[in-house]
This record gives sequence, C-alpha cells and structure tokens, in this order.
Amino acid sequence: MSIMEKQDIPSLVRSIGERAKVAGRVLAHASTDAKNNALRAAAHALRNYAADIIVANARDMAAAGIKGISGAMLDRLLLDEDRIEAMAKGLEDVADLSDPVGSVLAQWDRPNGLEIERVRVPLGVIGVIYESRPNVTADAGALCLKAGNASILRGGSESFHSAAAIMNCLTAGLRAAGLPEDSILRIPTTDRAAVGEMLRLSDYIDVIVPRGGKSLVERVTAESKVPLFKHLEGICHVYVDAAADEAKARAVVFNSKMRRTGICGSAETLLIDRAAMPLLGGILDDLIKAGCRVRGDEDVCAADSRCEPATDEDWSTEYLDTIISAAVVDGVSGAIEHISTHGSDHTDCIISEDAANVARFLNEVDSAIVMHNASTQYADGGEFGMGAEIGISTGKLHARGPVGVEQLTSMKYLVRGDGQCRP
Amino acid sequence: MSIMEKQDIPSLVRSIGERAKVAGRVLAHASTDAKNNALRAAAHALRNYAADIIVANARDMAAAGIKGISGAMLDRLLLDEDRIEAMAKGLEDVADLSDPVGSVLAQWDRPNGLEIERVRVPLGVIGVIYESRPNVTADAGALCLKAGNASILRGGSESFHSAAAIMNCLTAGLRAAGLPEDSILRIPTTDRAAVGEMLRLSDYIDVIVPRGGKSLVERVTAESKVPLFKHLEGICHVYVDAAADEAKARAVVFNSKMRRTGICGSAETLLIDRAAMPLLGGILDDLIKAGCRVRGDEDVCAADSRCEPATDEDWSTEYLDTIISAAVVDGVSGAIEHISTHGSDHTDCIISEDAANVARFLNEVDSAIVMHNASTQYADGGEFGMGAEIGISTGKLHARGPVGVEQLTSMKYLVRGDGQCRP
Repeated sequence: MSIMEKQDIPSLVRSIGERAKVAGRVLAHASTDAKNNALRAAAHALRNYAADIIVANARDMAAAGIKGISGAMLDRLLLDEDRIEAMAKGLEDVADLSDPVGSVLAQWDRPNGLEIERVRVPLGVIGVIYESRPNVTADAGALCLKAGNASILRGGSESFHSAAAIMNCLTAGLRAAGLPEDSILRIPTTDRAAVGEMLRLSDYIDVIVPRGGKSLVERVTAESKVPLFKHLEGICHVYVDAAADEAKARAVVFNSKMRRTGICGSAETLLIDRAAMPLLGGILDDLIKAGCRVRGDEDVCAADSRCEPATDEDWSTEYLDTIISAAVVDGVSGAIEHISTHGSDHTDCIISEDAANVARFLNEVDSAIVMHNASTQYADGGEFGMGAEIGISTGKLHARGPVGVEQLTSMKYLVRGDGQCRP
Repeated sequence: MSIMEKQDIPSLVRSIGERAKVAGRVLAHASTDAKNNALRAAAHALRNYAADIIVANARDMAAAGIKGISGAMLDRLLLDEDRIEAMAKGLEDVADLSDPVGSVLAQWDRPNGLEIERVRVPLGVIGVIYESRPNVTADAGALCLKAGNASILRGGSESFHSAAAIMNCLTAGLRAAGLPEDSILRIPTTDRAAVGEMLRLSDYIDVIVPRGGKSLVERVTAESKVPLFKHLEGICHVYVDAAADEAKARAVVFNSKMRRTGICGSAETLLIDRAAMPLLGGILDDLIKAGCRVRGDEDVCAADSRCEPATDEDWSTEYLDTIISAAVVDGVSGAIEHISTHGSDHTDCIISEDAANVARFLNEVDSAIVMHNASTQYADGGEFGMGAEIGISTGKLHARGPVGVEQLTSMKYLVRGDGQCRP
C-alpha cells in the first residue's frame, strides 16, 4: 500500500479518520437490511477464504514464534477452521440482533402542542485498539456496524497479517451490501505512533474502546483526548454473609474464581463475614484442591494454615490466575467498606439469604454489576442477553457494564410543531 | 477561612474533592424526602436571609463598577428581592421533580433464572464552573443534589460574595435535612489556578459542566482530564423549505432570531430553499424592521439590497446579537449539507409542510435537537418539560440536549440469582 511506504503516521491516521467520518454519515442512515446483508456476506467471505486466513495467520504465528512469544499468547493468536467458523457465526449473531438505530426511547407532548421524541442515533466513529486476538477485528467491526457506526480498528502487531485477511472479508461484505467500504477501516501499520495519533483524533473519532491488558488501558487513559469505554481491571469480590447458604457459597465462590481465571469477571478476593467463619474451611478446601493458592489476612491465616499471608498489595491485585486473596470482614458494612476501598467498580457479589443484607449490598456497592447468589463469571453481555459486547465499562458515563449495540449509540431529540413560537 | 490564607490551591481543591466524594457516597443513598427537605429549607433560608444576600451582592456590584464592567454583565450580576425569590422558587421546583435515583430502567430474566435490572444511580461528584450569574450557585447545586450527586461549584470572581451568601443558605438547608454539609461545596478562592486544578481532579470529580461563554468552554475543553457536559456554541439554523407555509415561516424565523438574541437556542443562520425565494422578502422585512441586520450570500444580497454581504466567517459565527446570516440553498439536501458543514450540533429547524422533506431533515441533521415548524428558542429543558436544566449538551456521550436531573445520573446492573454458576 503506497500510503504505508511513506510512513507519515499522523497524516495516514488522519486520512483514515476523515474517511471513516464520511462513511459514518452514510452509515447512520443505512437500512437494517443493508447492515445485516453486509454482516452475512462478510460471514460468507470468512468461510470462503478460510484457507487464506489460515495462511496469513501462519505468518503471524511464525513471527511470534521467532520473537519467543509464550504459549497462552500464541494460543490467543491462533486461527483454525473452528475459530474462523466461530467468527463467521459471530457476525451472523450480530445480524440477528435488533437494530437499535431509530428506536424511540421516549415520546411526550407539551401543553403548547409540541411533540417531543428522543430517538437513538449512532455515535459516529468508534476507534478500537486491541492486542493479539485477531477475532476482535471481526467482532468489533460488526458490532459498530450494526449500531450504525463507522469503526477504525487498530490491532496488535502480532496479529497484523491475520487481521488484514479478516478485514478483506469485512470489506467484501460491505461491498456486497452496497455500503461504504470505509465503514470498517484498519490502521495498516504496526507503528505504535498510530495509537497516539488515534488518541488525539477527537475531531473524527467519537469514542475509543481499548481492549487489552492494564498497561494498554493505562497508556490510552493517560493520553487520550477522545472519550473511552474501558475498564482498567476487574478486581471482583465475592462476599459470603453470615446468612449465606453453605452449598451456594461453596459453588459460587468456586465458579467465580476457577471457571476461567483469565477473564475480567473472575473473582480475585473472597470476603467472609466474621460470623460465617464456619463456612471458610469448606470454601477453601474446594479452591485449594483445585490448585488455587489463597492469600489471607491474619484472621484467615489463623483459621486455616494452608493460606499464605496477604500483603497490602494483594487487596488491589487482579491476579487473572489461580490465586485468590481472602479477608474476614465485619458483616455487610465491612464488605461494602472493603470493596469501596479496594474494588475496581467492575462486578461484586453477595452470597446471603438475608433480604436486608442483600438489599443493602446491592444498593450501596457502586460497581457496574452487583450480584446476589450468582457467579461473577456471568459478567458478560452475552450472558446478560444483550448479544455480543465490545467490552465491559466501569466508567459511569454513557455506558456502564457490558457494552453492546445499544450502548454504542447516542440519541437526539426530534421536536415537531405547527408554527409554535416561544412567548 | 484559614485554609484560604495558605493559598495552596492544589491541596485546597483536592481536599474539597475528597470531602465531596465522601459526601457523595452518603448522598447516593439519601432518601427523596431528605433531599427535598434540604431544597425546601434552603429556599426558606434564601428568603430569610435575602437582606444579607443583597448586602453581599452590593459588594460584588461595587467591585464590578470599579473594574468598569459593562451594563449587560452588571445586570447578570445583580440580585434583588425578585431574583432571590425566583431562586428560592427554583429550589422548590427542583424539589417537586421526581427523584431519578433508584428507578428501574429495564428488567428482564434469563433462561437460567438470573433476574437482571438496570437501575439509575447518581454519577457521584459534579463540578460546575460558571461565570458571573450568582443564581447558578443555587440552581446547579440543587439539580446535582436532587440527582444524588455531590457538587463542587466554582463561580466567577465577580460574584464571589454573592455566591458565598447563597452557599450559606444551601448549607443551612443540608444541615436542616440531616444531609452532609459537604454535599454542595464551593471553591472559596478567586484564584484561577483552582479551575485548572478541578480539571485535573478526575479521581474525585466524575463530570464537569462549564457554564459560560466560548472562551471558558474552550479553555476547559483543552485542559480537562474530567469528562464534560458542554456545548461550545449554538449556531442554530432555520431552513425555510419550498413547501413552507409563509405565515409559519415568518413567525418562526422571527421568534427564533429575535425573542432573545443572547441565548444559545437563538437562530444565527437563515437558510432558504432556492424554490422558496418569494418568501424571502417578507421574512427579511420582519427582521429588519425589528432592528436585525442581515448578512447574506450572493443570492440573498442580489434578491434584497438591504442585506450586507456575508463573509465565510459569518457561517460559523454565533452572533448572540441582532444579526443573522442568510443563504440560499438547493432544497433539503443543500440545507443538510450547509448545517453539517457549519453547524454546532445544537438545534436546527425545518419549516415545511412536505412530509418527506421534514422526515429527511429530522433524520439526517445530526444535532442534539432537530425541530419542525417550531422556534429554536424552545431548546430548553424547562420548555421540554424536563424541569430545570444545568445546561444543553452538544456532545454525543451520555447526555445530549437539555441536561436535567435524569441526565445527571448513571446506572448499574443488579443481578439476582439462586446459586447459579456459569457452565
């Protein structure tokens, strides 16, 4: 691509921003059918060109191997027939979601006869900055498209060729549906300066979604002049109340920590009511037998010698691993206090059969998702029934919790009159 | 106040931020009655201490006179019995609004039995940076309080003593209702460094609302690390379509421009369909007879010799005065193109009896408020029936259009289960 050879990153990124903005203006009024046709045609293309995608992915895998990239990251990078089929199916699932654009959120009339409607409109242009998983190219581009937004995707250098091959399929889908090919654009360079440039592009990009680890999100947060939908960490707590049912407590704590330890909704801290200490042994048995290490406060360590002592840092650490911190607290007040001090406003859960304690916890814990008697691993747009998500937001503005197609929209007011003038 | 003598602005502002955050946590769960009692008690205090407020205001007026501040600004600064009564009534009006906090925005159940609710919660701490109108102290503090938010108010130096006197009444109201006195706080210094410090206080302030002229909003936008609810300008357009009703066109254009020229919803540009040129003379007659100057494009000037030629700059100028720019466009497409090029995404209106043209304009003009056959001066939360507003937002995130109590909230998800674990 000749534009890449020049390597003038600011003007490259800016020109992509301009193209996306123009496409976004068309896309804002595209029909639901056109958007769905594009998604289904892109799914078709992914299946049709699976062999090409696998070849491109092999180049990325080889380069990653030479760089000495480790097993878990290599696995995230890998594309095979099954994963390509899952991507294609994902695009069809997004096509099956209802179109949020144009839906009437509220309608009322005024005494002077003015008719007011609040309707959903797209946000405009969404930037997505992600790391090694090449499937994000398809997932994020599809969600933005369904919500009527143009998108600018900037994947990690590890997945450069895989993302390019996937992008070709998305572009083919847009072309087949008669939508602007610039509706989903990709930054075609691995130069990291392009990320910095995107973060300054507030004239063209309405929101940026950073998808990746803490260091990526921290960098983006520090630099961005564009609003972000993001979460920095998921330091999720499960609080076992004195009035907990033992079987539920054991099952939910175990699932919250151990089902998958590497996702943002996995529990990192167990809080146990001082009055629920008899339950502690059983809960820890389950975890330790499954290979989980427990870092306890003084009370936990005194009660169970299998625990290592926790340091202050442990209470604010997202392990994403088979480790859990554990502290004894004084009832629901103590749990709320601990969570408000150490939590990350992501997902927190109370295990209790006491309605008053449950109500207080749900009311006073100010996290995006507050749960009762259910695994924190349900913190997911799909599990919420919202369809696919582009991420989970712990910010309080605009989108909080799972960010699905609805959260990728804005709104405007339509006011219909018959010549009304304001007195 | 001893803390002021030190004049260590960063630590002063930070300590106010910390206090507000603590108060906000209490306020988030305050009862509707307590909040309303605080507002009514504050209204009572405003009336009771009106004489003291007028004395404080006289100090500000005298200082402004010495500084040579002009008539319009002096008028904005002035408080008299009527204006204090209006402020007190404003607080009571906010008390009468329904409390948005805790309302269930959506509720659904999942096949696995999980019950999901999306509920309104306060945003947290809201910073308000404003200029000379002292009544903003009461209006903004009240709206934030009703939505369960703590607020940090930073008024202009001109209204320093007036704001302090009003603040005393708000604090008295909070005290009477048993709410934290730190729920509404004021930056007790005229040092401009305090504004810069607020803009960096993203650990404590969730949103900042700049209320003032373009230079204030531009400065705040350039510097802020805290999200903003703002509009930079209201370059509002009225487009007179070929299918316009002449009487409505004349009345709505006149009212949109001339009712009050200094507000953000006043029209700054008249667009007229080339096929509606026969209506131009009458529309301009009304404006010119009322003392409005018209800056026209070539076609407008050729059609009416009373117009001055517009420069390129005129199309992007918010006059806030008895001046209007006027251009001939080619139908609704031309109008949409002009507005998307020169508009400020605030409020734009079409005058037409043609349903297809109206639908296209409402659909394709991407402004916070898009109107049909109604004066742009209706762009106001009160006129929308939303109660008082803290301002109008032209941003696409979170709040767009009038920002009232509902827009000053966030939401969270409550998930209730019975021991569910994710497979």
